[in-house]
Amino acid sequence: MIVGAMGHLATTAMVGVSAMKHGLCGQTGMVTAMDPFSRLDLEDPGDLIFGGWDIRKMDLHAAIGRILGDIGPFDATQIPIIQNDLDAIARNIFPGSAFNSGSAIQELAADRSMLNGRSLVDLIAGLASDIERFKADNDLENLVVVNLASTEPPIDGPAADMSLAGLERAIQTDDRTAVRASTLYAYAAIDAGAVYINFTPSQCAMFSGLVDLAQKKRVPLMGSDGKTGETLVKTALAPMFACRNLNVLSWQGYNILGNMDGAVLAHAENKESKIRSKDKALARILGYRPHSQVSIDYVPSLGDRKTAWDFIHFEGFLNTRMTLQFTWQGCDSALAAPLVLDLIRLGLFAKQQGESGLMQHLACFFKSPVGVEEHDLHRQFQRLQDYAEQKIKQGSRDGLLEALN
Amino acid sequence: MIVGAMGHLATTAMVGVSAMKHGLCGQTGMVTAMDPFSRLDLEDPGDLIFGGWDIRKMDLHAAIGRILGDIGPFDATQIPIIQNDLDAIARNIFPGSAFNSGSAIQELAADRSMLNGRSLVDLIAGLASDIERFKADNDLENLVVVNLASTEPPIDGPAADMSLAGLERAIQTDDRTAVRASTLYAYAAIDAGAVYINFTPSQCAMFSGLVDLAQKKRVPLMGSDGKTGETLVKTALAPMFACRNLNVLSWQGYNILGNMDGAVLAHAENKESKIRSKDKALARILGYRPHSQVSIDYVPSLGDRKTAWDFIHFEGFLNTRMTLQFTWQGCDSALAAPLVLDLIRLGLFAKQQGESGLMQHLACFFKSPVGVEEHDLHRQFQRLQDYAEQKIKQGSRDGLLEALN
Amino acid sequence: MIVGAMGHLATTAMVGVSAMKHGLCGQTGMVTAMDPFSRLDLEDPGDLIFGGWDIRKMDLHAAIGRILGDIGPFDATQIPIIQNDLDAIARNIFPGSAFNSGSAIQELAADRSMLNGRSLVDLIAGLASDIERFKADNDLENLVVVNLASTEPPIDGPAADMSLAGLERAIQTDDRTAVRASTLYAYAAIDAGAVYINFTPSQCAMFSGLVDLAQKKRVPLMGSDGKTGETLVKTALAPMFACRNLNVLSWQGYNILGNMDGAVLAHAENKESKIRSKDKALARILGYRPHSQVSIDYVPSLGDRKTAWDFIHFEGFLNTRMTLQFTWQGCDSALAAPLVLDLIRLGLFAKQQGESGLMQHLACFFKSPVGVEEHDLHRQFQRLQDYAEQKIKQGSRDGLLEALN
Amino acid sequence: MIVGAMGHLATTAMVGVSAMKHGLCGQTGMVTAMDPFSRLDLEDPGDLIFGGWDIRKMDLHAAIGRILGDIGPFDATQIPIIQNDLDAIARNIFPGSAFNSGSAIQELAADRSMLNGRSLVDLIAGLASDIERFKADNDLENLVVVNLASTEPPIDGPAADMSLAGLERAIQTDDRTAVRASTLYAYAAIDAGAVYINFTPSQCAMFSGLVDLAQKKRVPLMGSDGKTGETLVKTALAPMFACRNLNVLSWQGYNILGNMDGAVLAHAENKESKIRSKDKALARILGYRPHSQVSIDYVPSLGDRKTAWDFIHFEGFLNTRMTLQFTWQGCDSALAAPLVLDLIRLGLFAKQQGESGLMQHLACFFKSPVGVEEHDLHRQFQRLQDYAEQKIKQGSRDGLLEALN
Repeated sequence: MIVGAMGHLATTAMVGVSAMKHGLCGQTGMVTAMDPFSRLDLEDPGDLIFGGWDIRKMDLHAAIGRILGDIGPFDATQIPIIQNDLDAIARNIFPGSAFNSGSAIQELAADRSMLNGRSLVDLIAGLASDIERFKADNDLENLVVVNLASTEPPIDGPAADMSLAGLERAIQTDDRTAVRASTLYAYAAIDAGAVYINFTPSQCAMFSGLVDLAQKKRVPLMGSDGKTGETLVKTALAPMFACRNLNVLSWQGYNILGNMDGAVLAHAENKESKIRSKDKALARILGYRPHSQVSIDYVPSLGDRKTAWDFIHFEGFLNTRMTLQFTWQGCDSALAAPLVLDLIRLGLFAKQQGESGLMQHLACFFKSPVGVEEHDLHRQFQRLQDYAEQKIKQGSRDGLLEALN
Repeated sequence: MIVGAMGHLATTAMVGVSAMKHGLCGQTGMVTAMDPFSRLDLEDPGDLIFGGWDIRKMDLHAAIGRILGDIGPFDATQIPIIQNDLDAIARNIFPGSAFNSGSAIQELAADRSMLNGRSLVDLIAGLASDIERFKADNDLENLVVVNLASTEPPIDGPAADMSLAGLERAIQTDDRTAVRASTLYAYAAIDAGAVYINFTPSQCAMFSGLVDLAQKKRVPLMGSDGKTGETLVKTALAPMFACRNLNVLSWQGYNILGNMDGAVLAHAENKESKIRSKDKALARILGYRPHSQVSIDYVPSLGDRKTAWDFIHFEGFLNTRMTLQFTWQGCDSALAAPLVLDLIRLGLFAKQQGESGLMQHLACFFKSPVGVEEHDLHRQFQRLQDYAEQKIKQGSRDGLLEALN
Repeated sequence: MIVGAMGHLATTAMVGVSAMKHGLCGQTGMVTAMDPFSRLDLEDPGDLIFGGWDIRKMDLHAAIGRILGDIGPFDATQIPIIQNDLDAIARNIFPGSAFNSGSAIQELAADRSMLNGRSLVDLIAGLASDIERFKADNDLENLVVVNLASTEPPIDGPAADMSLAGLERAIQTDDRTAVRASTLYAYAAIDAGAVYINFTPSQCAMFSGLVDLAQKKRVPLMGSDGKTGETLVKTALAPMFACRNLNVLSWQGYNILGNMDGAVLAHAENKESKIRSKDKALARILGYRPHSQVSIDYVPSLGDRKTAWDFIHFEGFLNTRMTLQFTWQGCDSALAAPLVLDLIRLGLFAKQQGESGLMQHLACFFKSPVGVEEHDLHRQFQRLQDYAEQKIKQGSRDGLLEALN
Repeated sequence: MIVGAMGHLATTAMVGVSAMKHGLCGQTGMVTAMDPFSRLDLEDPGDLIFGGWDIRKMDLHAAIGRILGDIGPFDATQIPIIQNDLDAIARNIFPGSAFNSGSAIQELAADRSMLNGRSLVDLIAGLASDIERFKADNDLENLVVVNLASTEPPIDGPAADMSLAGLERAIQTDDRTAVRASTLYAYAAIDAGAVYINFTPSQCAMFSGLVDLAQKKRVPLMGSDGKTGETLVKTALAPMFACRNLNVLSWQGYNILGNMDGAVLAHAENKESKIRSKDKALARILGYRPHSQVSIDYVPSLGDRKTAWDFIHFEGFLNTRMTLQFTWQGCDSALAAPLVLDLIRLGLFAKQQGESGLMQHLACFFKSPVGVEEHDLHRQFQRLQDYAEQKIKQGSRDGLLEALN
């Protein structure tokens, strides 16, 4: 179940799975399609059943129409082929909540009832009942809830990162300033035993208390903020400066994009969450904090075609000053959607392996991997590979033992 | 001893060591200045004695003057401070050989006697006697010979990579088409027990036979072609595409530079060596061979300020096409000089540790690391770190054992 | 009638005119859609009847299919709307000639008879009869022939630029080394009284003798080489350096593209024509010849999406060195097609005004405007505007006089 | 006399003039060094006597030291050659005023007395007396006052652009909110009959009332905001899109710089003036207002090496979307200093020709040319050339007449 199920990213993932099933495209962009992950016993993407919530009242076909010009040669004449799949998904999408999500998001809501009306206990109960119904309707045993909704503003002050006790107190006392919609989705999902993934930078979707709840309920979870573009390149390149002992003086990053994500981030309070999330990696990788800045601007004509210009000023031997600049022109949804599928598959696998709590081996997928200090993309990926190799080895051993018995 | 001792790169290394000694600059750019390497028992850069060969008759101060505008805020008023150091070095520089080096290099020779006159046996004996004299004059026990000369043309056909037997036969029979000057330097150096580093792409400086000779003489050696610019960035970035399962369609690289290296590479036969060296890494890292091209053009106004533009066209989910481009503006000598110092220090260390033959742990310093299949910068660097950690652990253990005995 | 009627550029122009007629797109990109040109009495694009020649045997719909992914949001579902228009055009396309066009082009020919078989006199007669038939079939009074075929190799030596006498002698004596297919098309077109436009860099399509023939036959003509991308930007930017007295040291231009144009230009002899055409403008605008280089490489994955990186190194006050670099990512056909329509409209207008010979006022459309020394885009455009204003003024005066009589 | 005489730009102009006198550099970067301007009877740069004001207490040599690393190969060993010239200038620099200049500027003041103490009438009288003394000390007949100080915040509300009556009332009533230091300098300069140039974006330095005063006093003046970098390129490139009928969808401009100008612009209120000035040109040239944004960020490591990245998203034929991006890496002072010299020379010339009020023919030097609607660089420059040609023609005619009489 996807929070933000009508968004660019969610619909791209849905179209992609359907297109793969009908042989219209391959698995390019999916990490789990590669060795060694392809040797793990992961759910087939084509067997996933999609559903979720959205605060917009929107036809799923219309939602997909908006993104077709940006995602590559997949043209409108192919839509009829995947029509049935989309119709089935549409039946699984429930009205969502924009509780305390900030004005930028609340303005998108189809219906005022999605805003701040009911009590927190009621809201969570409502989401729990949606989850029940989705599982029953589709006869499902396992569930992953993925947050792909627009970025909420951060919460500052004492409530900035709530413990489980604090969170449950806030719910019971209906403290309506301490949590946001994303907290409620996460709570309901984990409480229902679903694997939970926060692909957004929304801090309220990843309170410490939610991690504790996941431990208690024995479910795996991970976040935050999918690493798909500028930060991906940054965490691939910064280790180069580190390993050559080149002194980064300044690293400026300018992002422009035109999708709904960009429209919401054009609001200062929402942008704040994103920039906090993007700005951490550099100091961790370099071991010092260079002058740096990350900026995000809304440029409607770009649609989902996110562009980033990074300018790196660095110093080498004899204090010689040099520069590196790069321009990244990516399609946001096409970069993120396969990672969402990877996370769903690896989350279900972890559940089945009896793992619970933070899935730190998934750090390479996130800009702000909760509980992980390592931001170097290459080391993060090495860790994921090591995890897979170890599981495969263990699987063969178990298989052998079973055969022997 | 440096082959090409009057070149931009050699003189930058000399100026740098002297400047460090006098507190005019720090060790930025030197890998061995960082942990864990700083915990190895490496030669202090300030204790190195420089000498070498050059085919140009040139005042060392004039040689340094040419590079001062390009290397960073090190200004002409500081030269007097390092004057004495430079004068001492100047006394250690011998006339070099441009034997069969191709017309682009031979045109630079101060003297026709440096070209093709004497027999190979004589030429090698001459270099051996220079080495003897340098060691005696400066009372040295250990020696590293580093090839920093201009890129020679490759040799094609059966002589493309000579065995030791072939090499010795060529020398004995004075087969003047089979080897180039760089072969003679390498032979003389290794034969004299010196650690040998080929920092150039010249293939004749790294025949298999030379590796065998090093094994036989129990000396360490490594090459080829210092990884300082575009290829450095390429081997840092390509793993990102690989680990995200993004399909690189095309990778175009355009290099422009204006130093002597550029002037020599403006000759098609010399450029060929360079391009062969630069073009291997991509296919190794990605696991397939995308459309790719590396071009190098001579732009005199740039001097040592090498600029590279790389354009990467790639495909992601749903066959969506995207691009990444980067512009690297580096100072060639300032990037390479500290690596030369690193290689000298690590080469001397390996010798002292009783190692011999290819120093594969130094792969991260080279575009074409002989005997190493790994081109991923991050994995290469991990290997170097592992080497250092293991040496440190072994050193403590040895120290402990010694204390116990 | 278009030479190369099945090519990307020709088909984009045809699709565009039809799409405009059916309201699927506007006139963006057409110079003549703007004031003051819109006040001239120009042919409506929707009234143009297309036809021409091609050496490939190809379905026009298939030809259009290849380009649809590159030209913007015009999607495949809209093709049926313009179907009838395309079918009508298909009937007007004749088998072309690849006479002496070089191997890169001749390899594309559907049929060996298109190559070198018949005599020059016969070949021209054949083209003349195609022209006759096209005019008769479509009941046309005025005709424009536009050369949009792939770039032919240049001819060096005494035949490099033939006079009319030389040209007619070559035809009569059947001197098969002196002319190429493009010469024959041009000769037949002008001889038949058609306005003639050479939009390619092919030098043989624009011999002086052809200009003389046009004078003699009282028809207007112009060329060569449509200015659509890197050179457009170059001739817009170079005047900036000139008017600020900034000294351009080096101007490097790297072009990569993946369409048929690129495939043909991957052949050294064809590329030569293009590079000669692109390299002239700079020295004319600056008044001196900086170090400069133009390179074109074939990168198949780019299709029609031509990308150019230009690096400009310049010197200002106190000899301070600075740089400007730009990356142009254009769709070749979408940039060129509207200019072809502009040239057709302005060519017909000139004919109707009784003009003949070189239409120098059209210089702004060409990389190598024959007979024009001015390469500054802005001054070229000013000249075109002045032409239009003068025609409008004259038109009103004539109208007034007529009304008075 | 220069307002901000110790700044990077002022000192670069001074060093430049002295270096030219001693043959250390040529006139590259000076517009007036080129034909036809070189045929006008302009003051020789070497004959200019510099002086001015600064709010910082600073040694002129130290001021120059800060800029030497950024302006090109002019090295520290050459300073002694120009020492005498600099010493003479130092004697002509008076303590300046930071009256109501906003906190970012006032923090730089050496002395609290430079801030808000004295009455407006007194402040103006003080500046007038400095002017008197400078002229007397140096025995000067003609004077140009150029504002090169840091950018002040704009003034909003009714006082945003004061008439002469309003301005004089504000001075008489000592209305301390309505004017800023730059207003006082301008008033004193014009009142003293000096040619006045506002090279900064400070709006208070160019109130309409000051233009009226100049008319009344019969002195020429011009402003505002020297066009030296990103806007220069923008106004050279935007006409290209206009003349090809390409529809600019978005034009994003990101500027980073590290000099004092950058430090002051890091303050939101000061940045506001700059951005207003930079944002006008586009709509004027294109005839419509695309989505556009100009941002300026302070990156200390860059010093005077200003870098700008512009991203232009545009639409062509068949609604095809394309991009152009450029990176400009200029040295701010080296670009601006020669223009300051040009303006001084052309201002003195205008005075001598009896011109007064706005010198609209100088529009090409300014981002916001007061009284001029034309922002197209090429048309602005054409106007300047026409002015020069006309003056030359008139000069010859006058000379001829004189000779005849």
